[in-house]
Amino acid sequence: MREFELIDQIRRRFERPDGVVVGIGDDAAVLEAGRYDLVTTDTMVEGVHFRRDWSSAAQIGWKALAVSLSDIAAMGGEPGAFFLNLTVAPGQDSFVDGVLGGLAEICEAYSVEGATVSVAGGDVSATDGAAVLTTTLLGRSPADGPILRGGAQAGDRVVVLGPTGLAQAGVDLLAGRLEVDPQDFGELLEAHRRPRPLVEAGRLVGANGLASALIDTSDGFGQDLGHILEQSGVGARVEVDRLPRHPQLDALCHQTESDPLEYMLAGGEDLQLCMTVPAAKLERLREVGAQAGFEVFDVGQIHADLEGVRFVGPGGDPVELDVLGYQHFAVR
Amino acid sequence: MREFELIDQIRRRFERPDGVVVGIGDDAAVLEAGRYDLVTTDTMVEGVHFRRDWSSAAQIGWKALAVSLSDIAAMGGEPGAFFLNLTVAPGQDSFVDGVLGGLAEICEAYSVEGATVSVAGGDVSATDGAAVLTTTLLGRSPADGPILRGGAQAGDRVVVLGPTGLAQAGVDLLAGRLEVDPQDFGELLEAHRRPRPLVEAGRLVGANGLASALIDTSDGFGQDLGHILEQSGVGARVEVDRLPRHPQLDALCHQTESDPLEYMLAGGEDLQLCMTVPAAKLERLREVGAQAGFEVFDVGQIHADLEGVRFVGPGGDPVELDVLGYQHFAVR
Repeated sequence: MREFELIDQIRRRFERPDGVVVGIGDDAAVLEAGRYDLVTTDTMVEGVHFRRDWSSAAQIGWKALAVSLSDIAAMGGEPGAFFLNLTVAPGQDSFVDGVLGGLAEICEAYSVEGATVSVAGGDVSATDGAAVLTTTLLGRSPADGPILRGGAQAGDRVVVLGPTGLAQAGVDLLAGRLEVDPQDFGELLEAHRRPRPLVEAGRLVGANGLASALIDTSDGFGQDLGHILEQSGVGARVEVDRLPRHPQLDALCHQTESDPLEYMLAGGEDLQLCMTVPAAKLERLREVGAQAGFEVFDVGQIHADLEGVRFVGPGGDPVELDVLGYQHFAVR
Repeated sequence: MREFELIDQIRRRFERPDGVVVGIGDDAAVLEAGRYDLVTTDTMVEGVHFRRDWSSAAQIGWKALAVSLSDIAAMGGEPGAFFLNLTVAPGQDSFVDGVLGGLAEICEAYSVEGATVSVAGGDVSATDGAAVLTTTLLGRSPADGPILRGGAQAGDRVVVLGPTGLAQAGVDLLAGRLEVDPQDFGELLEAHRRPRPLVEAGRLVGANGLASALIDTSDGFGQDLGHILEQSGVGARVEVDRLPRHPQLDALCHQTESDPLEYMLAGGEDLQLCMTVPAAKLERLREVGAQAGFEVFDVGQIHADLEGVRFVGPGGDPVELDVLGYQHFAVR
């Protein structure tokens, strides 16, 4: 498919998003004045972030936008228009078609009345190497401003909305590093292949001003909580027994005689949300979660006199875990 | 260099641009409300758009942003914050350093008081394949709105601000397709390696409302004028003898016994500006150009009863030129 044919196909397949006056087809897109104030961009590289023998083209397309949607959620914002840079070797029309299908699917899944998630522009290029997908997503902050990483205060609770470490376990399964049948662990595979960003939860946390700091766990729970602490100039104590567990991760680690905590604390690529919540707002967060269908796990507390994260067991003893030495596996 | 070190280096090297409240270092960048309404994104792929044995790393970095700056100029807008997605094989620190140096250079060249051109965010990734650079640049429309491709009217003059076809000639020289010494044609090489987008000219055309349609010539003058005509529902007659000439392109074609018109009409990759101008505004455009240091070449006219571009010679006869059959060379 030639460049202009592909651009035409994208234009036909994706409606112009809300808040965009001129979409595909001019030198630049034109946005409604004052509509968007958040911008995030993510690149996925074949062989590094995905493999075609591990994920379908549609899953790859889905995931390319999922990681950006999660970033807007992690500002407490609402997503909208995005730009797609598609760099693929010539002649791979069915791969491109699958990627666009996955993108169309995630756009539909996350569009709401008045805030469609859709393509406003981009660039398509040939390569003779690995496929590279970049999505640049615009979003809108809540009325009281976005929730940054630097707002955690002593006494705030550390909250996570669900289990972490799943995507990294999925990668290890797909890579054949574990002597089990990967098909028994579908939700771990899905966490790598087709992760579900917590867009509505992030938006509700933002709109209701329920968190003092917010981040997604794409670098791993421990490291991402560390980003909050560093930018806020505080420390945290996290009780590992209060962390949410995933039955498939527990089963996997039981069978492979490994420690689920390593995945839960250091495994990257998850699109969970981690936040710090003023103690007085915790109950309201639980109510909002109950209505919207997300759980709230209160796993620790912010302390002014600590530096970094201290992981402690049931009796308050430090957990013996070489998390710093844990290396992220790349997909390859 | 590891991911976080590289991000730190980028943060130290590029000041936070005007109009950006939160730059590098959170889940998304936060923009001043109402500041930017234009977005353009461009991807450059090693082996397709550039080669390291043809261009220095600094030239590659310069060019990556130059093409996006030209797109904002082609809306009549003013550029500002941009996002950088850098996908490079591990261990290529000196290449990355050179690219960042070229980017810093072009940022300085095009920043003005109150509208710095600089990095507001991005993503850095490893690859085992070709390097891929994506820039996503934000800009601000003139007060009366951007100048689109679809506004040309019958009677408007067709204007170009300088000679076209230079970059394509530069590529042919670097590829060794022409039996001459490339060093005699420095400005043609420069047009490929380190093109200069007409940012100030575009901004002035926009701010003074001097064009009814505007585009840059990155696909080649004939094709890009064709985009204006198609979107405006009109045709044009262009007198090829009025097109601006470049002495090095003329000399090259003289030596190689080829027709400069092929380059001038069909050669891509130039960052010239092409526009349609209401006849009554042509004199004002010339005055603005004389003050700002750009020339105005009036090369033809828009006609309601034509379709596409008709290129004509001195007596009004159609020029015999197989432009439609002319194939863009890729760098490889």
